[in-house]
Amino acid sequence: MSTHLPLLFSSSIREDFWNYCHVNTIEKPIILCDTNTLRDCLPLLGNQNLFRLICIPDGEINKSWEQLNELLQQLLVLNVHRNETLFILGGGVLTDIGGLSAALYQRGIPHVNIPTTLMGMVDAAIGGKTAIDFAGIKNFVGIVKQPETCIIAPIFLKTLPEIEYQSAWSEIVKVAIIDSRELWELIHTDASIETIIPFCAHHKYDLVQQDEHDKSIRQLLNFGHTIGHAIEAFYLSKNKPVTHGYAIAKGMLFELYLAHYIQSISSDELAQMKAIVLTNLLNNDNSLGIELSELKETMFHDKKKTGTSLRFSLPITVGKGKWGVEIEWDTLLKVYSIYY
Amino acid sequence: MSTHLPLLFSSSIREDFWNYCHVNTIEKPIILCDTNTLRDCLPLLGNQNLFRLICIPDGEINKSWEQLNELLQQLLVLNVHRNETLFILGGGVLTDIGGLSAALYQRGIPHVNIPTTLMGMVDAAIGGKTAIDFAGIKNFVGIVKQPETCIIAPIFLKTLPEIEYQSAWSEIVKVAIIDSRELWELIHTDASIETIIPFCAHHKYDLVQQDEHDKSIRQLLNFGHTIGHAIEAFYLSKNKPVTHGYAIAKGMLFELYLAHYIQSISSDELAQMKAIVLTNLLNNDNSLGIELSELKETMFHDKKKTGTSLRFSLPITVGKGKWGVEIEWDTLLKVYSIYY
Repeated sequence: MSTHLPLLFSSSIREDFWNYCHVNTIEKPIILCDTNTLRDCLPLLGNQNLFRLICIPDGEINKSWEQLNELLQQLLVLNVHRNETLFILGGGVLTDIGGLSAALYQRGIPHVNIPTTLMGMVDAAIGGKTAIDFAGIKNFVGIVKQPETCIIAPIFLKTLPEIEYQSAWSEIVKVAIIDSRELWELIHTDASIETIIPFCAHHKYDLVQQDEHDKSIRQLLNFGHTIGHAIEAFYLSKNKPVTHGYAIAKGMLFELYLAHYIQSISSDELAQMKAIVLTNLLNNDNSLGIELSELKETMFHDKKKTGTSLRFSLPITVGKGKWGVEIEWDTLLKVYSIYY
Repeated sequence: MSTHLPLLFSSSIREDFWNYCHVNTIEKPIILCDTNTLRDCLPLLGNQNLFRLICIPDGEINKSWEQLNELLQQLLVLNVHRNETLFILGGGVLTDIGGLSAALYQRGIPHVNIPTTLMGMVDAAIGGKTAIDFAGIKNFVGIVKQPETCIIAPIFLKTLPEIEYQSAWSEIVKVAIIDSRELWELIHTDASIETIIPFCAHHKYDLVQQDEHDKSIRQLLNFGHTIGHAIEAFYLSKNKPVTHGYAIAKGMLFELYLAHYIQSISSDELAQMKAIVLTNLLNNDNSLGIELSELKETMFHDKKKTGTSLRFSLPITVGKGKWGVEIEWDTLLKVYSIYY
């Protein structure tokens, strides 16, 4: 095992984790976990007293400015040195805020992601995007910092509530629609999750290698997210958080209609893509679940905004898409009135 | 003029600034200034209504977590887009916190440093280190992010109080002692500041090119800073801030004694180096000005710490040094008792 293999797929997490520590001469690893992963996942790595632990409350609400401060303070209390590694054991919320703390603490310490959710394994833990929510806007403050390694161990999925497991499928379906006919076929042939995870992880990693800072092709992964992030932020601001996967599924549905409206995809392609989103992700609920106007302010503060229009990544056929498509707000209103 | 010349020396700041904006299609530049540079420096660029302005209170005390939050909020209020440039018009405090806000806002927007102090021009504005103070520790939270360009216009020095002007000489003398016999000669032949500024700026830039993340040769620039930062932090914690230059001069003096004690430099070399520090920087005040024990806690939380010892960059002869010299705390106590 290389010390810095970017993706390490592990079927024996305890052994592989400690081997990584051994190779990198780490004696008492510093682990960041949340209240859930402390209880459900950490035992798979070993007894608590083998680690220096930092534990934060779970949930998107804690991906905050205040929690980032707390986290930096905790690293300081543990007297973490600038050459020590922070292991982050958790889902997307934890790898986002944990990676950011690792980027900022003493101008940067190495970090290793150990995703414990399907969402983390196929998407969130790979690619180096870190962030907190700020002023009510999702991921508004952050930085791109690559982890030394991302250790992917599907065994952790057994600890996951069904709802989290389901919601990650949004990102998988997204990749299939926008950038991978091969993945589309895998899904439609009921390939096992053990096949799908490494496929998605490698796919994400390859895109990031081509475009780390999201200037071009990596933007494909924003499909469903321009609308989806706004939906997620809206519910969060009302103190009724929904899962990222649910919001993105709703976002993809809208953006599929948009792609059809601007004649980027045919009616036949729309039908195929809509079917997989509606059936697999949304229990056939073909509503936006929210007034479009409610999302306007959030979307115009979103990072994808340029001038008065909004930018979308949209499919052009199954497994292929384009990024940076500028759409006026009025067009969205039309799509909303026609398709819903 | 290239759009991304790393160092731009300007003898006609208004023209060069607006030319930069023109070439980069910037219509209403976003300027970060402090209360001093708003009054004294901004008028040299043009009338206030030509800009979108953010102004923060001046002083090291504002290089804080709270001010960073405020700054990010201000960028949001101005609705700054992720492809817009933040111009930072000020000294080291402002380029430190401003650069950090540019790194974090929407995962990073471009920034341009326009240093208004001698310290900024020869050191602080070059090399991409950004930071705030945190938990009482100087520069504890930050990141390395290179500015697009550093525009150096000595005209701003006319707006500077004498004390700031003097204190920057510490960094110049530091470079002469630890890494540049040529600069040492320039100083000793009373070269003009117009000659010394570009020399120092290029020297810093070249070091950073070789070692952006401070893993090796860039550490030479820490000479005087292991002790100096602790002195600065101590006075700040007592609400009696001293200038960075004063603290570094005191730090260099101590570290020269340390270099002599461990026989890194001869008595003759010590005498020469001590003379320039004492005469030019410290008005011949050969005291530490503080009990060494007062600095212990700060130093052991400092970023340069490894294990139980401290790491120093020390001269081996005039214009040449070594980095990563591990010194035990007891050795410092001995140096203190012998030389003071």
